[in-house]
Amino acid sequence: MTSFATHLECARCAQSFEVNSLQQTCANDGSPLLVRYDLQKVHDAVGPGDLRDRDWTIWRYRELLPYDEPSKIVTLGENCTPLLEAPRLGETLGVADLRIKDEGLLPTGTFKARGAALGVTRARELSVTTIALPTAGNAGAAWAAYGARAGIRIVVVMPETTPQVIQRETAAYGADVWLVPGSIADAGAVVKRACAEKGWYDASTLKEPYRIEGKKTMGFELAEQLGWTLPEVIVYPTGGGVGLIGMWKAFAELREIGWMDQRAARFVSVQATGCAPIVRAFEDGAEESQMWPDPKTFAAGIRVPKALGDFIVLRALRESGGTALAVTDEEIAAHMRIAGEREGMLVCPEGGAALAAVARLRRDGWIREGERVVVFNTGSGLKYAESLQGAAPRALAPGSLPT
Amino acid sequence: MTSFATHLECARCAQSFEVNSLQQTCANDGSPLLVRYDLQKVHDAVGPGDLRDRDWTIWRYRELLPYDEPSKIVTLGENCTPLLEAPRLGETLGVADLRIKDEGLLPTGTFKARGAALGVTRARELSVTTIALPTAGNAGAAWAAYGARAGIRIVVVMPETTPQVIQRETAAYGADVWLVPGSIADAGAVVKRACAEKGWYDASTLKEPYRIEGKKTMGFELAEQLGWTLPEVIVYPTGGGVGLIGMWKAFAELREIGWMDQRAARFVSVQATGCAPIVRAFEDGAEESQMWPDPKTFAAGIRVPKALGDFIVLRALRESGGTALAVTDEEIAAHMRIAGEREGMLVCPEGGAALAAVARLRRDGWIREGERVVVFNTGSGLKYAESLQGAAPRALAPGSLPT
Repeated sequence: MTSFATHLECARCAQSFEVNSLQQTCANDGSPLLVRYDLQKVHDAVGPGDLRDRDWTIWRYRELLPYDEPSKIVTLGENCTPLLEAPRLGETLGVADLRIKDEGLLPTGTFKARGAALGVTRARELSVTTIALPTAGNAGAAWAAYGARAGIRIVVVMPETTPQVIQRETAAYGADVWLVPGSIADAGAVVKRACAEKGWYDASTLKEPYRIEGKKTMGFELAEQLGWTLPEVIVYPTGGGVGLIGMWKAFAELREIGWMDQRAARFVSVQATGCAPIVRAFEDGAEESQMWPDPKTFAAGIRVPKALGDFIVLRALRESGGTALAVTDEEIAAHMRIAGEREGMLVCPEGGAALAAVARLRRDGWIREGERVVVFNTGSGLKYAESLQGAAPRALAPGSLPT
Repeated sequence: MTSFATHLECARCAQSFEVNSLQQTCANDGSPLLVRYDLQKVHDAVGPGDLRDRDWTIWRYRELLPYDEPSKIVTLGENCTPLLEAPRLGETLGVADLRIKDEGLLPTGTFKARGAALGVTRARELSVTTIALPTAGNAGAAWAAYGARAGIRIVVVMPETTPQVIQRETAAYGADVWLVPGSIADAGAVVKRACAEKGWYDASTLKEPYRIEGKKTMGFELAEQLGWTLPEVIVYPTGGGVGLIGMWKAFAELREIGWMDQRAARFVSVQATGCAPIVRAFEDGAEESQMWPDPKTFAAGIRVPKALGDFIVLRALRESGGTALAVTDEEIAAHMRIAGEREGMLVCPEGGAALAAVARLRRDGWIREGERVVVFNTGSGLKYAESLQGAAPRALAPGSLPT
């Protein structure tokens, strides 16, 4: 064991569990387990300057990741994603210092690759042979890809309304893909029963402890790209919320090892008006969300009616002085189009939702003049062929020229 | 002018042209112009060790690139693409040391981003306001994205058979997209007339000198990733051939500045049996290819019936001891599927063609036991939704479980 990980800890009741054997959720209350590290040892072992000669991939933060053997990672080339200035888009939205962290440049075209890379690496270390998971879309594709790379069988259950490209992509990696009516919640119920009956490893969001460790690297990268500081505001499209929880955890770890000061970024959770359980809970002052009936939005990744880690997301929003808001599908589509035309960025619907939220928060004054705002575009628009914006291509009449 | 570029040189007649003003092709013979550098000055200014503190993007090789002002580059985050080991796929193809350079992780999902990043950067430096280009698919999308980012108008003419996702992607960047019957050759004829009539800048393959300088970075990266050495064999799907010419040029420059020894890699050009003009010319011992009548293959990027730089490609193949071969659409599809299932890589059809060629060349003994083989997967399979392989997703019967 070369990792600095010491144990798993329940996010609700804080009970400890063994990190070096297969675990799912807390045996007491079914809550997510978080990997804990010996942060004093990490502090003593490594400083920011030691990263200098390492590759710019998610694995550069290895002392704060849970895997044992660097030569046995399951990788498809997880480069650190660019943090792009977006001056023309920022001008449109009224935010002078707007930056987009473009997660579409990861393998499988979305941020889900981070979680799958760590999750599958760790599953293989722990001798898993079959993994099952429900998905709203992109997690299934990512786990299918890394499973194929690792030689682990992957079973994916997804809503029958999942975008076509994602369905076919997942199958192209050789995964078993099953379609069900309803949402990811319905797919999750099937996976739960299948895992209980067949002994498969359940890689549902936050039902295994390693996906979040991969997502955490978004926070490490962002902090390092900004010289170990944070922006005033981080805007994040929220489905299961693992990325937000991961960043929250990453920032806490960086502070603990002394790489970053105490100043926090305000987190913003963005959902769709057709599926906004976390927004409603935030507004109601509740500690948990309620299952959203009949969730509807074309932004498949945020069509999650109830997230297992909702209470951690809500805690992060409140402790950071952040907020939550829902945008309409029309606003999402409009902002996908603006990103394409103003910056040449083909953002996914979830990224469009985050941009729409920036526009609203700036108009409302919640985002203040001069604040630095980082928006996560969680994936490539290429995965949502049905939803691409822009004018239709035109047939050129024979003998004529473009105008 | 901070660049080490000194002039442009005709690839056929070697006449010189001014590098710091707008140029298209050689005024004498219409051949492509190549950017030439003061390589002695580059040698004196920089060594491989100086790259250590630079970002891992295409811009790290700036002394061998033609742009003037680093703060004014047009970028969407061109990370160096991973060179992935592919042991399971290699086992299937009989090549123990097989590596895939995965160009699908660039902005817009293909290697075309490299050429567009440099081409649009340089066009903006030279005050171009409208760029027109024909495309077999992905170049149009890439130039549209970088044009949007730069605030330059882009007009794209493409075959009406171009994959749907690519058509819609290109439009989503705000480009004017026009569809014509036939192939890229027919689109090129339209662009040629339009540019002559309207004064637009013609960014057709090799009709402007900077796209190739961007593509050249594939060669720099590959050499650096292998410790400034080359593999025995480089397998490259060949449409316009700019990437191959670019790497050929890159390797020559690296040798000239003393970063690499004289040992060459054998280049392999891969085309489809339905459109194989370079393969035919190579087999016939010809110096140029002939226009291929009725080009047909679902690998859109290599459906190029006649490349302006064919004579340079043929020269590179022969001087390197390389070869050219054509594979069938069935072989392409089969190898896309194998890459997905064995390695979790969603290769594009052109990448599938290159893998199919490796299988053939190994069976024939042209690739020898123990040789290191690098295959370029030129783009993400996500852009070819119609062509994704794998079993169809299945509807799960109510109440039942996945098997």
